[in-house]
Amino acid sequence: MIHYFDNCATTRVDDDVLRILNDYAVEKYYNPSARSTFSMHVANDLAVARENIADKLGVSAGEIYFTSGGTESDNIAVLGALRSKRGNIVVSAIEHSAVFNAVKELGSKGYEIRIANTLTDGHIDVEDFLSKVDEYTVLACFMHVSNETGAVNDVKSINASVKSKNNKTVTFSDGVQAVGKIPVNIRYLGVDLYSFASHKIHGSKGVGCLFVKNGVKISSLVFGGGQEKGLRSGTEYVGGIIGLAKAVELAQKRLEVNTADFVNYKKVLRDCLAGIDGWRENCKNDVSPAIMSLSFQNVKGEVLLHMLENYDIIVGTGSACSSKNKQSRLVKAIGLESEFSEGVIRISFSKYNTLDEVKLLGDKLIYCVNDLRKTMLGQKI
Amino acid sequence: MIHYFDNCATTRVDDDVLRILNDYAVEKYYNPSARSTFSMHVANDLAVARENIADKLGVSAGEIYFTSGGTESDNIAVLGALRSKRGNIVVSAIEHSAVFNAVKELGSKGYEIRIANTLTDGHIDVEDFLSKVDEYTVLACFMHVSNETGAVNDVKSINASVKSKNNKTVTFSDGVQAVGKIPVNIRYLGVDLYSFASHKIHGSKGVGCLFVKNGVKISSLVFGGGQEKGLRSGTEYVGGIIGLAKAVELAQKRLEVNTADFVNYKKVLRDCLAGIDGWRENCKNDVSPAIMSLSFQNVKGEVLLHMLENYDIIVGTGSACSSKNKQSRLVKAIGLESEFSEGVIRISFSKYNTLDEVKLLGDKLIYCVNDLRKTMLGQKI
Repeated sequence: MIHYFDNCATTRVDDDVLRILNDYAVEKYYNPSARSTFSMHVANDLAVARENIADKLGVSAGEIYFTSGGTESDNIAVLGALRSKRGNIVVSAIEHSAVFNAVKELGSKGYEIRIANTLTDGHIDVEDFLSKVDEYTVLACFMHVSNETGAVNDVKSINASVKSKNNKTVTFSDGVQAVGKIPVNIRYLGVDLYSFASHKIHGSKGVGCLFVKNGVKISSLVFGGGQEKGLRSGTEYVGGIIGLAKAVELAQKRLEVNTADFVNYKKVLRDCLAGIDGWRENCKNDVSPAIMSLSFQNVKGEVLLHMLENYDIIVGTGSACSSKNKQSRLVKAIGLESEFSEGVIRISFSKYNTLDEVKLLGDKLIYCVNDLRKTMLGQKI
Repeated sequence: MIHYFDNCATTRVDDDVLRILNDYAVEKYYNPSARSTFSMHVANDLAVARENIADKLGVSAGEIYFTSGGTESDNIAVLGALRSKRGNIVVSAIEHSAVFNAVKELGSKGYEIRIANTLTDGHIDVEDFLSKVDEYTVLACFMHVSNETGAVNDVKSINASVKSKNNKTVTFSDGVQAVGKIPVNIRYLGVDLYSFASHKIHGSKGVGCLFVKNGVKISSLVFGGGQEKGLRSGTEYVGGIIGLAKAVELAQKRLEVNTADFVNYKKVLRDCLAGIDGWRENCKNDVSPAIMSLSFQNVKGEVLLHMLENYDIIVGTGSACSSKNKQSRLVKAIGLESEFSEGVIRISFSKYNTLDEVKLLGDKLIYCVNDLRKTMLGQKI
């Protein structure tokens, strides 16, 4: 049995979602854009999924667009929202690479990119962020939950402050690590654009969602049959979308139970780790219960990760989506001291984790860290 | 039991593919970009899928890119291939809306769009197409198999002629209705870019493929974690991709049997229809065995389609992907006489169809067409 603690990277598909995927793969496989009554039923099922998701997130069905995933949602938000040819874009230093690299692309097209600082625990430095917003700011991007430390930003407050400085600035929050993991009501948050992905909450890979507030104009990146009101052409991955509605529903139902469990899991791990020195929890306040980022002094996170695999334990090192890049922007942004900076691991929980698994993780973490430090000491002598 | 004859719109997922989808949803669900050994195994499985697909299509693994579907593949091809800021683009009048509308988008950005005529059976008018290619042609788009009539264009010959007029022109063929349905060796065809989609060949919706010939430069439309060598960032829909490799393999294995069956199915339908007047087969030569486009005089295709549903028979009217538009570009392009133009239905076969089903379709077609004509006659009196 695998003890999987990398649920920020991706998750196991829920059995209820799987039943939906299978149903739309071999029974209701009809193309929702075709003319038969069977196709119309499928199109109707899509409409119901859209309404259910909107309802769960406090918005209208007409504001929900389905995409191929978080990255595409983020890109449509960043690249599709601009209405003027110039201006500046304010973005936090810890945005997911899908947002950060899309913004960088705009930099190469003549927009001025202003990168706001991050606090040492991974929260956005709100003061610095707001100081960068001015009358020429066309887009402001501030993620909801950091995929690296779990830091939860006060999206409602940041949004209100940005809008009060410049009410024409389009505001976007990446909610990929928020939806289904902390309470999310997009209307309450007030942002113009909000994105999330299915595979982070026990839905299928290959499906994402973008909220576009009524009245906010957005352009598409691809063109074709006019699906998703023209914003995202292409035959819909129907099972994936209807499965996403189920995944959101299941996640919201379980939110309280998960939160209590995960808070307890963190406590158990802290108690375990109290037995050793030289570690820190990278974000302790205003943090997602689902994410625990730890740094170990004089230990390489990646070596630790592979050692834990010997016990069938999987943890993460940072964002899976930027693992091709050598160093995390986050580690730089939060200014981790050098002896801690290579020893980062990210533990992220799901409903499939048990207390016994967490205790095993705690025990093996101590064992492996001690062992690695002994080996290093041996090498030094 | 449903008798499904709209396999150009989409297909039922094959059971072998479904097993793969399920396996990667609940067992090997790891993110291929994460650092664990389990993730590396998944990344390796993706590499094997890429090699298998490349091998089946006569190209190299490094030339195969996975996307979210045919529409995205077409859009990357059209919007990502251009290296100069101006010039003309030659496109056939019958391209799929994903190609046609992406090209139209370029028209709004200052490129000159030249639309080549179509012959009356839906083939590209090659002479007209080539006459439009000149030293300023930056992109030429000629689809492989028409999704409306099934007309198979001589892609190899068109490509060679375009290149001999201007060897800098990037050539692109949309192979969505070709791969798995007729023999396809992309290297033999010689084009720079070639696209196809999984859900047309019993794979999952939400997955597509783009071939980019070695040495051809192409830009991405989305930015992020750098997956697919940076061309298509975003967590891969792993099961869908590996399922696509299986779908291509299964389709190629069955190509000869399918072709013989489908050729026979067409003959059976023609024999049935010999009993009534006032119909035509829109494309009879150089046509995909999988597609039979029929026009019935003084009959509305959509009404016919819904009548056939009473017998649990599903056929198509035209491209599902452009069904939101009122009239098919194809019907206009091939110049169907007005009394035929509204009576188009598209029958498209798959391996799940049986001879008995085809005979049933033939019988019910005659019955419904006769009935509709009687009703119309009654209305006129």
